[in-house]
Amino acid sequence: MLRQILKNFGSNKVFTLNSIGDHIKSADYSIRGEVLKKAQEIGQELCRSQIYPFKSLAACNMGNPQYLGQKPLTWVRQGLSLVVNPELLDYPGLISQYPSDIIDRSKYLLNCIQGGIGAYSDSAGYHVVRESIAKYIEQRDSVGPSNPNDIFTTNGASPSIEITLTAIIDSLNDGIMLPIPQYSLYTALITLNKGKSVGYYMNSNNGFWSMSIEEMQKALSRARNDGVNVKAVVVINPGNPTGQVLDEENMKDVVRFCEDNRLVLLADEVYQDNIYMPDKKFTSFRKVVIQMNSDLELFSFHSLSKGFYGECGIRGGYMELINIDKQAKDEIFKLGSLMICSSTFGQIGMELVLNPPSPSQPSYQTFIQEKTEILSNLKKNAELMHALFNTMDNITCNYIEGAMYAMPCVRVSKKAIQAAKNANLPVDKFYVMKALEETGIILAPFGYGQDPRTFHFRITIMSPEESFEDLLLSFKVFNDNFHKQYKDST
Amino acid sequence: MLRQILKNFGSNKVFTLNSIGDHIKSADYSIRGEVLKKAQEIGQELCRSQIYPFKSLAACNMGNPQYLGQKPLTWVRQGLSLVVNPELLDYPGLISQYPSDIIDRSKYLLNCIQGGIGAYSDSAGYHVVRESIAKYIEQRDSVGPSNPNDIFTTNGASPSIEITLTAIIDSLNDGIMLPIPQYSLYTALITLNKGKSVGYYMNSNNGFWSMSIEEMQKALSRARNDGVNVKAVVVINPGNPTGQVLDEENMKDVVRFCEDNRLVLLADEVYQDNIYMPDKKFTSFRKVVIQMNSDLELFSFHSLSKGFYGECGIRGGYMELINIDKQAKDEIFKLGSLMICSSTFGQIGMELVLNPPSPSQPSYQTFIQEKTEILSNLKKNAELMHALFNTMDNITCNYIEGAMYAMPCVRVSKKAIQAAKNANLPVDKFYVMKALEETGIILAPFGYGQDPRTFHFRITIMSPEESFEDLLLSFKVFNDNFHKQYKDST
Repeated sequence: MLRQILKNFGSNKVFTLNSIGDHIKSADYSIRGEVLKKAQEIGQELCRSQIYPFKSLAACNMGNPQYLGQKPLTWVRQGLSLVVNPELLDYPGLISQYPSDIIDRSKYLLNCIQGGIGAYSDSAGYHVVRESIAKYIEQRDSVGPSNPNDIFTTNGASPSIEITLTAIIDSLNDGIMLPIPQYSLYTALITLNKGKSVGYYMNSNNGFWSMSIEEMQKALSRARNDGVNVKAVVVINPGNPTGQVLDEENMKDVVRFCEDNRLVLLADEVYQDNIYMPDKKFTSFRKVVIQMNSDLELFSFHSLSKGFYGECGIRGGYMELINIDKQAKDEIFKLGSLMICSSTFGQIGMELVLNPPSPSQPSYQTFIQEKTEILSNLKKNAELMHALFNTMDNITCNYIEGAMYAMPCVRVSKKAIQAAKNANLPVDKFYVMKALEETGIILAPFGYGQDPRTFHFRITIMSPEESFEDLLLSFKVFNDNFHKQYKDST
Repeated sequence: MLRQILKNFGSNKVFTLNSIGDHIKSADYSIRGEVLKKAQEIGQELCRSQIYPFKSLAACNMGNPQYLGQKPLTWVRQGLSLVVNPELLDYPGLISQYPSDIIDRSKYLLNCIQGGIGAYSDSAGYHVVRESIAKYIEQRDSVGPSNPNDIFTTNGASPSIEITLTAIIDSLNDGIMLPIPQYSLYTALITLNKGKSVGYYMNSNNGFWSMSIEEMQKALSRARNDGVNVKAVVVINPGNPTGQVLDEENMKDVVRFCEDNRLVLLADEVYQDNIYMPDKKFTSFRKVVIQMNSDLELFSFHSLSKGFYGECGIRGGYMELINIDKQAKDEIFKLGSLMICSSTFGQIGMELVLNPPSPSQPSYQTFIQEKTEILSNLKKNAELMHALFNTMDNITCNYIEGAMYAMPCVRVSKKAIQAAKNANLPVDKFYVMKALEETGIILAPFGYGQDPRTFHFRITIMSPEESFEDLLLSFKVFNDNFHKQYKDST
């Protein structure tokens, strides 16, 4: 057989790296890359021996709050358990354990969904869930109704983003503007869709990250001069990884920028509930667009994974399409429908989070207490982290206005850069690997050097509170030693 | 502003149908197309008035058992509810309501997953779940161990199929062989990935659907003569929509065909638990490949949506990669990891279904009773449907060996073809629309005419048993009238 002959020549596989396209091979999703691999190795060794100076790993590389000990909301899990197993509703004594409002809500939801959560929903999601989402949006923005038919639910925000980019990028020459630094899902998906990432720099000034229309204009002009057909702008607000919270004036400028340059706006607003600075508040791009009476084409993404709810594993999310051409919207929704429907469990989770108990209901006290505790812990951590990083050698850290991350900037010596080169690693990865080996803290390297002597890393602010300060102090020891070890001789 | 000026010319949208690629616009997913739209309209009218001769719609267009009244398995929903809300484990009295084995299993699973289901799992899925899947595969096939590291969990089987096709199709000229008729997800995804669908006909002989290597060879030769670079073959077993269950001899031929022609095999095995004919049994391609000592590159897809469990909305599924080049596997898994991880809830559901209670455990009796009842109902329906369709004018229906559908063949008059033409519809859609308006039964039109005077439609066998015979009898009235109305004058 041909196959046998080829086998003898050692080339018996048909499907190999060579047969896979470059657009796939070069799609890099750094959050789950080499550093995590190393961490997994260390994790396995930790079970067997004590060769590391720490007892356990601290997964500060991802916004994964429940992994780090954050408790799920009682309201959400009680409701989900009833919708999952409606027989619980008939159990004697349940009424004394579950408040009446969550029992009522679950019955209401079960009543609206034929066949329960084991049946496929409409492709866009249950109508009852999309109505709740629309009501939430309406109350959040106070600028008129949102239409449930403009909402499409997906398994987290990631598939919404994927569908949107797949529909927008049509040729090798199509470009999407992205903040630098950005959440690496965007570059990975643009690469996968054979489009071009057009980065615009975030400004870092006086301890704050900010968006600059000037930088955006510069990036756009450069790309258009290079012949790139720039079609859309991604704005992440509150920022990932930079944590900035945009104010309305800044947002109006972004809207005008998109209008003037005929760009679609993709607003990643998954951290809308994560604001830590007292003088900051979240404003949606939808609100700004409607207030400006603009007809800017806007996609807004939201997720069940972040906020104070932090239900990452459940995979709930949605996109809202505003001012999008009807036929184009139909194509987007058709793309979404190829996967039949999003997780019904995720949809119900989204409903419970966005339509929480009201102050007069029995679940309210617990709900508001849990919500407040989670958000105030995050705020405390954000402040502590900002303060502590700024005491460490050669580190500066901007204010963490929102989202879930700090993005400290590290200035390194020539000697450290040389040592990284010798280890065949970029300097940010070199540093992050060393930190991992010495402290057990898993960080995400984030390159981003306008200045070749500096780099950034991303660290979540959600480590369990009790050990959080110790964790940061062990990191301080590592960092200060690192800079001593690689100090340039003067 | 430029935008204002353009607006005055009526062309103010940036993102329109014109800016969307043809590969997207022509990706057609017929299961959820025009017929369903019409059904939704009728559904809304049914609430308001009595203009239709039926009281409710029967959604026989999709394999969606719980939507049609099938009850979820107690074992699965009890386990899921505990994993969703572990506080239930502390409730007094739970032990008298839930058997001890499901309590133990839930505790075991919760113990294995850090942070519970609200935390992201590994991209491929929890290790404990992949171990269970591997154990299930091992016991199913009895040809040696399966490796948890070759398994990747996804939200249903659809994303597994999407990821695989995305990785395999690299140029406009790459082709994937598909059965005709086939499950439309495949053509939609191939179109979306800008590849070429290379159809091979299923044979319909003596009341049975079967696969013919001769037809496959014909289709392959034709495509290769046309310059198509055929890379893989999709086999759906048990068949969707054709319901055939392949025997081992036939499968060995398929494996040899793939080997000889250097093709990767994509085995869609989501109906592996749905077999209705006493002399048939499911054999996995993995088993055949290993028994033949072949190194054929094989992807196998499985899902939580079908079988006797029918948990469609939950979105659980996985793929197993067998004999796949290590680096190519890494790329496939990386593609999967872009969506971070599959629904943890779906993963747990998969674990509970594939690792059910053993005969000595307290949940076993209920589990086996529910399983038997569901499967025997499906079997009864399959037999009834096969018998009844064959009493209807101009309809022939093959045996339903497995899966969840009948695929009756309808022979129509020239007059009916002309009437469809006048209504500007293909004749299968014309017939299916009429059936919908007159009986409330939603069917999936399936064209597939090697003979221009015949077409097929797909109908699920899972309508609720009580009304199932009535439903089929009302359909018989419709069908027989249809053929009377459009009888050619002789």
